[in-house]
Amino acid sequence: MSLQPLRSLHASRPADRAVLCSRLAEALPPGAFLAGDAVDARYRGAGDAGAEPRFVMRPTSSAEVARCLAACDAAGQPVVVQGGRTGLSGGERVLEGEAVLSLERMASLSAVDRASSSVIAEAGVPLQRVQEAAEAAGLYFGVDLGARGTATVGGNVATNAGGMRVLRYGMYRAQVLGLEAVLADGTVLSSLKGLAKDNAGYDLGQLFIGSEGTLGVVTRAALRLHPKPAGECAAFCALGSVEAAGALLSRLRAALGTALSAFEIILPEIYESVLAHSDAPRPVAARGAVYVLAESHGLDPQREGERFAQELMAACEAGIVEDVALSQSPRDVHRLWALREGCSHHIASLPDCVGCDISLPLATMGAFLTAASAAVRGLDAGARPLVFGHLGDGNLHYIVQTGAPEAVVEAVLRLVREAGGSVSAEHGIGLDKKRWLALSRDRAEIATMRRLKAALDPNAILNRGRIFDPEPEAASGSAGS
Amino acid sequence: MSLQPLRSLHASRPADRAVLCSRLAEALPPGAFLAGDAVDARYRGAGDAGAEPRFVMRPTSSAEVARCLAACDAAGQPVVVQGGRTGLSGGERVLEGEAVLSLERMASLSAVDRASSSVIAEAGVPLQRVQEAAEAAGLYFGVDLGARGTATVGGNVATNAGGMRVLRYGMYRAQVLGLEAVLADGTVLSSLKGLAKDNAGYDLGQLFIGSEGTLGVVTRAALRLHPKPAGECAAFCALGSVEAAGALLSRLRAALGTALSAFEIILPEIYESVLAHSDAPRPVAARGAVYVLAESHGLDPQREGERFAQELMAACEAGIVEDVALSQSPRDVHRLWALREGCSHHIASLPDCVGCDISLPLATMGAFLTAASAAVRGLDAGARPLVFGHLGDGNLHYIVQTGAPEAVVEAVLRLVREAGGSVSAEHGIGLDKKRWLALSRDRAEIATMRRLKAALDPNAILNRGRIFDPEPEAASGSAGS
Repeated sequence: MSLQPLRSLHASRPADRAVLCSRLAEALPPGAFLAGDAVDARYRGAGDAGAEPRFVMRPTSSAEVARCLAACDAAGQPVVVQGGRTGLSGGERVLEGEAVLSLERMASLSAVDRASSSVIAEAGVPLQRVQEAAEAAGLYFGVDLGARGTATVGGNVATNAGGMRVLRYGMYRAQVLGLEAVLADGTVLSSLKGLAKDNAGYDLGQLFIGSEGTLGVVTRAALRLHPKPAGECAAFCALGSVEAAGALLSRLRAALGTALSAFEIILPEIYESVLAHSDAPRPVAARGAVYVLAESHGLDPQREGERFAQELMAACEAGIVEDVALSQSPRDVHRLWALREGCSHHIASLPDCVGCDISLPLATMGAFLTAASAAVRGLDAGARPLVFGHLGDGNLHYIVQTGAPEAVVEAVLRLVREAGGSVSAEHGIGLDKKRWLALSRDRAEIATMRRLKAALDPNAILNRGRIFDPEPEAASGSAGS
Repeated sequence: MSLQPLRSLHASRPADRAVLCSRLAEALPPGAFLAGDAVDARYRGAGDAGAEPRFVMRPTSSAEVARCLAACDAAGQPVVVQGGRTGLSGGERVLEGEAVLSLERMASLSAVDRASSSVIAEAGVPLQRVQEAAEAAGLYFGVDLGARGTATVGGNVATNAGGMRVLRYGMYRAQVLGLEAVLADGTVLSSLKGLAKDNAGYDLGQLFIGSEGTLGVVTRAALRLHPKPAGECAAFCALGSVEAAGALLSRLRAALGTALSAFEIILPEIYESVLAHSDAPRPVAARGAVYVLAESHGLDPQREGERFAQELMAACEAGIVEDVALSQSPRDVHRLWALREGCSHHIASLPDCVGCDISLPLATMGAFLTAASAAVRGLDAGARPLVFGHLGDGNLHYIVQTGAPEAVVEAVLRLVREAGGSVSAEHGIGLDKKRWLALSRDRAEIATMRRLKAALDPNAILNRGRIFDPEPEAASGSAGS
């Protein structure tokens, strides 16, 4: 197939679009090109909330992805890339005039390579399948998050997914040993050797991690696997302040090192609300200003359990912890996590909630929480801040039940900026948080992002308008300081 | 100071160069601009081997770096960036017509932030000062390498330094929580918040890690610190094959997890040669086909020492290890490391040695070693391959004492390619390994590196010709597949 004639097409003209569609339908195998009535509403994005896609491409190989993108690029057809469509920033939502590139049919997973502790996954493989394959080989995959059954490897890479175990295993970036990605013009960049050390020129794969599909389409990833933890223990603590929680974190980190696998925070408002709506008993009798769920995930659970218990007792004696419950069994661990995960479920059941996914330096978090609570209540006297998250990573899910969502989000995010934090810790920017990007990144940084975008996707066909808006024509010069 | 008039200058014309120099001398504080006799020979690069620099800039702040680069960029003056000048690929060596930008006077180090376990270092701070500051705060910095006293943070970031503890703590990339870098046009990109989770747009800092100063000049870094290990133990093993060493690695990794801090390999030829030239006793009685130094670096040294000993005994019983000596004291640990570090010193004392810094998948390493040894001896019957390195990372220092260095290196690196390895594991490409880059990266990858270079340094003033040659005029189009 020759794609040259497409270069004269313009996707904005209906007749030219028809030519592009028939070329794509010819160039791809049956089932890989859908248009008209064959396009299911789910391709519009989460909650079927987006526009109707012009057409849907469902390639089954990197070569087919390259053919799809080269054709769309030549015709100036914008493309939105979809994985599991369970991102939380609207990046997958179809904008008027876009075609969909879905990786759902690229879902093969290599056998686990035990010698190098790695596995190669196609973009459409759900996170849970990676976890299960690692488990079956006696190993462990370091990322876990609620949407594990639907979120895919490609989407996880593109958003640099975080989740519950970042404290121990790092963000998704730390799991990537190699990547294959396709640029807008169809160039396939394949670096799947999976070597732990490889300083032969730029590490191009880094470009595609966390850039939300705007620089290229991730098609495969070589992923690092870890030794399987032999067991875990957990503790639930009531503390008097965020500062006390920070002190406990420092102590546990020094005592347990990488065995400290989670350090979650729950503030009283949502803690009481979750307990009131469930029949679970209170894990600790005392009322704290802050609650913490700490977990140790070790290779020597008995010994680590002893150290964990020792450190917690010492923290009680030092007046850092006011009350603590320590797990005695895997069932206890599960029960404590159910309370923590209950926070997310509870939020989903409440009306009028608006959320911010923020991260903050631990040093400024306490003052931020005081200031944010005052600001929120100043805007809406009836507002309820419901706050929980991954304290060990400085990451809070700052949810507010309010009738003034826009003003509240703006006030919270401006305070995040003042506290030296980030307006998106782990969910990315997508379409929904674009207006807040400038609170976390300065003009020079955003201008440099645009330079990279222009270098790798000069026709701006890939996930256009995600993270930042296309550059205004007038301001297309270089970004000098 | 207005730099506009410089845009009409051309550094290739002597009169214009004089204008550029006088402008820089005016714009920078005393001591920050050196020319003529004031330029010491050390600025030529390692071994004073490079050309004489046109002039030397020694800024003391990011703002001064920005002024230097903006002026050179406007005048088309090529600049080579220098840190400790102890890289191993010639990246710091001055080419005819280049000016030097030395970061030596940007050498301040923040106080260690214990709450976030991090520290902010200017580019010119030597690695050893970071290690000592961490140590003094009861923490630990995860990178260590022989040139610790001279190698600087900026050079370590730019080359994504590796070293002895990659197995445990990862490459330098894994230590970077945030970066400040200056682009060729003087744009300052500053992202030093040091947040563990921050998915607000592209992580621009990743671009400058391992790109050897070709995309921007690193001026500061926020570095991650780790809990301080409480002690270590080490074992020296004789084994029958590389495959047996791989099996031992898998077992120790499963038993010790991240406490396994080093897994070094020494092959018999250099092992015997080092012992013959020292008065150190043989650590083990048996003669192996492979020797391994394994180290555990834990928070609970007694318990980990027990597990370490148990696993090694089990490996002996399983026939994986033929002989083993286990450290009984810190002095023993030091003695075993002295033998391993003795390999590097010994090589430096031998005439006619040529070296390759390669990495390989463990699965192909044994066959590679057999094939490489045969190929080397086929080219030069008297050649001695002297091989040691970081087996846990798949990284070998493949040194050959030979009268036919060029043919030998070519043969070895072609076999590395066939084995799925990398021609540069941790030393980078610089000037000296450029001709081998295409054995590790394909045309699409190198074309994409050039696109990035053109996007961020359109006048190609920064470390020009390092990693890859400037693109030939005729081939400057887009890099379609």
